Amino acid sequence: MDEHPLKQVGEFGLIDRIQTWFNEETSDLLGIGDDCTVIPRGDDEVELVTTDLLIEETHFLFDKITPEELGHKSLAVNLSDIAAMGGRPKHVWMSIGLTARADLPWLERFFTGMHDLAQRHGVRLLGGDTTKSQKHLVINIMVTGETTRSQVKLRSAARAGDIVFVTGTLGDSGGGLQLLLEDLHETGDPAEQKLIRAHNRPDAVVDGGIWLGKQAGVHALIDLSDGISSDAGHVANRSGVIIDIELADLPLSTELRQVAQKRGWDPVQLACSAGEDYALMGTCDAGGWDSLQKSYKEEIGYDLHAVGVVRNRNDTEQQPSPGPRRLTEGGEVRFLKNGKPFDLSGRGYDHFKSG
Amino acid sequence: MDEHPLKQVGEFGLIDRIQTWFNEETSDLLGIGDDCTVIPRGDDEVELVTTDLLIEETHFLFDKITPEELGHKSLAVNLSDIAAMGGRPKHVWMSIGLTARADLPWLERFFTGMHDLAQRHGVRLLGGDTTKSQKHLVINIMVTGETTRSQVKLRSAARAGDIVFVTGTLGDSGGGLQLLLEDLHETGDPAEQKLIRAHNRPDAVVDGGIWLGKQAGVHALIDLSDGISSDAGHVANRSGVIIDIELADLPLSTELRQVAQKRGWDPVQLACSAGEDYALMGTCDAGGWDSLQKSYKEEIGYDLHAVGVVRNRNDTEQQPSPGPRRLTEGGEVRFLKNGKPFDLSGRGYDHFKSG
Repeated sequence: MDEHPLKQVGEFGLIDRIQTWFNEETSDLLGIGDDCTVIPRGDDEVELVTTDLLIEETHFLFDKITPEELGHKSLAVNLSDIAAMGGRPKHVWMSIGLTARADLPWLERFFTGMHDLAQRHGVRLLGGDTTKSQKHLVINIMVTGETTRSQVKLRSAARAGDIVFVTGTLGDSGGGLQLLLEDLHETGDPAEQKLIRAHNRPDAVVDGGIWLGKQAGVHALIDLSDGISSDAGHVANRSGVIIDIELADLPLSTELRQVAQKRGWDPVQLACSAGEDYALMGTCDAGGWDSLQKSYKEEIGYDLHAVGVVRNRNDTEQQPSPGPRRLTEGGEVRFLKNGKPFDLSGRGYDHFKSG
Repeated sequence: MDEHPLKQVGEFGLIDRIQTWFNEETSDLLGIGDDCTVIPRGDDEVELVTTDLLIEETHFLFDKITPEELGHKSLAVNLSDIAAMGGRPKHVWMSIGLTARADLPWLERFFTGMHDLAQRHGVRLLGGDTTKSQKHLVINIMVTGETTRSQVKLRSAARAGDIVFVTGTLGDSGGGLQLLLEDLHETGDPAEQKLIRAHNRPDAVVDGGIWLGKQAGVHALIDLSDGISSDAGHVANRSGVIIDIELADLPLSTELRQVAQKRGWDPVQLACSAGEDYALMGTCDAGGWDSLQKSYKEEIGYDLHAVGVVRNRNDTEQQPSPGPRRLTEGGEVRFLKNGKPFDLSGRGYDHFKSG
């Protein structure tokens, strides 16, 4: 149905091309391709910069998200990118293209949602651009953050032998989206409402990201925006490693299990491929895992969940997975189910390939 | 015809509201409202940040601008904001929402236009976001730049007695837009082609802005994006002064005069109100004007044009203009024609009030 000419290239292919066109000299910093740009500031400090564009009909449906939720979510997805580098978010710029439906009362509610989240994390809105849009509401948010050279967490830092972990349950947001798309969002089922809330008002793991940034035993870090299937691929590729994910270990909420059973969905598929969970996925020294998990629970108040291991590309103790190899340029993600290779045909969300 | 609910508030009213909602504590920097946000970096350095959102049908017509021109213009309008603070542009982030019509060959041409301009001024594209847009092409550009506390030029710095000057001819872009809107862009008239080029491929006054930033005698600076009628109002308001503009002194190109005569347009109206010229308007010590003008010509290669003077609000030697007072909160712009008060009914472009 969708004849978008960029369908065959995909977002990640397009990012590669942009990188080729523009990236002349980036020896002093990380350019396009990680969650944030990393710019040196002084001897040890680095500035993090991230930007996300949200467009009505592509990223949200105007009638299926409240203004407060959209304001919250627009900022949260950017805070999540800063968290994914182990950084502390600091400043926000917002451009908004307003349609006729986004009137002043709507806008005030939108700002309330964004403002509440900004205040909670001590970030400040410093500027932006407001304009009119004829057809679809457009929101572009840019967030800067800060950390140090030694603490910044890159996608390229995963090492063979690392434990792969995630900071929260997966698939809730994907389940919520499914309910919205199937017009099942007014059932009053509390489990379903929780999934919709996970989709429309995701929480960025801001404090968790700052804390994980400070742990030397944590190597790679990324946020799960496109689904672990796709996002683990970025880490595997950038690090030049194999990542084995054990499907039985993916943390699923009670609510997702309930709703999936009721609706006949595969919750593991949603957890792997639906995206927009905005949990963080990291890799850490296997030797430090128990201590990391314990301290995270004490300091941040949530569980870390081990979901896989990082292996050398030359490591042959594991059978190759029977499905098509994924993201084979520099690394590979393999799925196991109870220790056995498993063909996961689902894919992470790619804006140009889906829909 | 346009029933946009924000029409009555206008872009500037909306910016005021956003400022109220967000600007809790900006003692250490300039928040929303100038051409850029100004963030202190170290003892004397400051970082400048600006962002502009361009949406198809609101800011450009896909079929009436080449991809190279649109790539150039998207960056140029942001470089102009950095220039308007007296700063040097440094880094660029771009988000783009691509429609089906913006295919890969289109995109490569778009990037070529942007890249050529970026290279000419030594700025680097460091990141961004690419996504799909169902209906209209969306481009958000963010540019950072640098200068020092002592050299940053604010809208609020105009002083009574200053000369008001502009860095180039006015109204060409407005004439070009008029030709495009009236479908008169394929006439082959070289004068008309020059106006269209001024609209589709404006030059930001980058070197001029950096040079003016270094001159202590230059006080306020702004770029003419909405038309001098509106933009001089921002300076008058922020500085709490009256700005008198002499219409006979506005620099008009030979081409604009020719085309205006041929088409029956008022070139002065276009120069005052059409906007998108991206010349800079500044104010400077009257005593240093001759020397400033001479040095600018020598160093930058272009003329500065004196177009008015800054007066105290209490200054009563001048008759009030017969037209409606404009932007009366903190300052006022008055128009003179050969020294006599003149009612200029046209207004600067405001995205929510026009169209």
